[in-house]
Amino acid sequence: MRYFAELAYKGTAYKGWQRQVDAPSVEQALEDALATLLRTPIEVVGAGRTDTGVHASYYVAHFDMPIESSDATTLLYHLNSILPHDIAVFSLTPVDDDAHARFNAVAREYKYYIATHKDPFRRETAWQYFVDLDVERMNLAAAALLRADDFTTFSKLHSNNKTNICKVSKAVWTPGEGELVFTIRADRFLRNMVRSIVGTLVDVGRGKIDADEFARILAARDRSLASGSAPAQGLFLNDILYPEHIFHREEH
Amino acid sequence: MRYFAELAYKGTAYKGWQRQVDAPSVEQALEDALATLLRTPIEVVGAGRTDTGVHASYYVAHFDMPIESSDATTLLYHLNSILPHDIAVFSLTPVDDDAHARFNAVAREYKYYIATHKDPFRRETAWQYFVDLDVERMNLAAAALLRADDFTTFSKLHSNNKTNICKVSKAVWTPGEGELVFTIRADRFLRNMVRSIVGTLVDVGRGKIDADEFARILAARDRSLASGSAPAQGLFLNDILYPEHIFHREEH
Repeated sequence: MRYFAELAYKGTAYKGWQRQVDAPSVEQALEDALATLLRTPIEVVGAGRTDTGVHASYYVAHFDMPIESSDATTLLYHLNSILPHDIAVFSLTPVDDDAHARFNAVAREYKYYIATHKDPFRRETAWQYFVDLDVERMNLAAAALLRADDFTTFSKLHSNNKTNICKVSKAVWTPGEGELVFTIRADRFLRNMVRSIVGTLVDVGRGKIDADEFARILAARDRSLASGSAPAQGLFLNDILYPEHIFHREEH
Repeated sequence: MRYFAELAYKGTAYKGWQRQVDAPSVEQALEDALATLLRTPIEVVGAGRTDTGVHASYYVAHFDMPIESSDATTLLYHLNSILPHDIAVFSLTPVDDDAHARFNAVAREYKYYIATHKDPFRRETAWQYFVDLDVERMNLAAAALLRADDFTTFSKLHSNNKTNICKVSKAVWTPGEGELVFTIRADRFLRNMVRSIVGTLVDVGRGKIDADEFARILAARDRSLASGSAPAQGLFLNDILYPEHIFHREEH
């Protein structure tokens, strides 16, 4: 029976989601915990990669387990007990046999957190960056992301993507108390894309680039024009959207 | 000239506020940073002790410095640069020459955070405690704290306090998303008092003690009747109140 697991992880201690030969990954931690509890190897398929040190406040993975959904609650309890403190599974939900955590995702949302004042509690979960940023100007520039389709400028060389086409449906900076938060939603993301966009928009915010230049940089499809990437610790995968029909949920 | 420093610290790496001979303390870190920048030893006086691993989202310390208030902004910037990542100073404000961070404080407020579901981001900043708690019942019991004056039940043996008399003006549990927060305000606190109260109120919340019993335990002035103390990582010193007149502030 196939299940979707909804989970969250603090990425500081992991070399990203994806299993690595010689470094700890969230995928491996989850597979190890499932194998221990179910006494059989379980292959987990995640909704996508995340980079070293990047967090997920919401993540989805699927796997097939030889247990009834009535036993899933007990498994969930034991899973959280043996998983490390920095990985938490919220739910195990039965889905269609061909449901796929990566291929069925119709949109993903990331948040990027900048701490605008030194914050002793967020060294690992925000970019501590204390330069005055013009939020209005950054939002003016970010609007160009909604009109673009080719994100080559904000992609990595030598990635496996066949195309650099993405449809961004939300891109907005929101000031909060002691922080500045960038929310970006798209049907798909290229490797390093959010951190590259954030780094370039921060250069807009501090006056190095104006909104028109940002639009030209984006349209140029030239990754050498992007600014340096913002650091990993500020980035959170925040939401993944699926068509409702693939879940076998009870009403609640 | 005397200054009040407003600061915050994550207590995980420190054996509390107070300077220790053989262990890192927040006080020592602050004194070392000031001595480095001002090239002279500076004695810092804090608003009170905090225990090992306890945090402060708001803390006040005073010290005398041979600098003009016009240079305090520059000092503040350098201070935050050389202080460790887990200590942040918000402000340096000139005060009366006899103003005292501890003696002039008229009230202190603590918050205690319980994460009610496994939270991968709060291992060091919340008590991860997943037992169902009856918040209404806990608040009913907590109301007795407002009527009490002697807190011997929630004190530590062999502490330096001359009396165990405190005037609690606020004591309330507030449920939030994935958390339960206890806020307690008093004119003074005894060593270990908040964690001992929280531990006992949690026993009320899980049904081991009822509100009337809690009131009797409190009235008994017998520390052997208190439950085990809640762990340090959930506790934050959250506010310290002073009479406004001791600050030499500009209007803002």
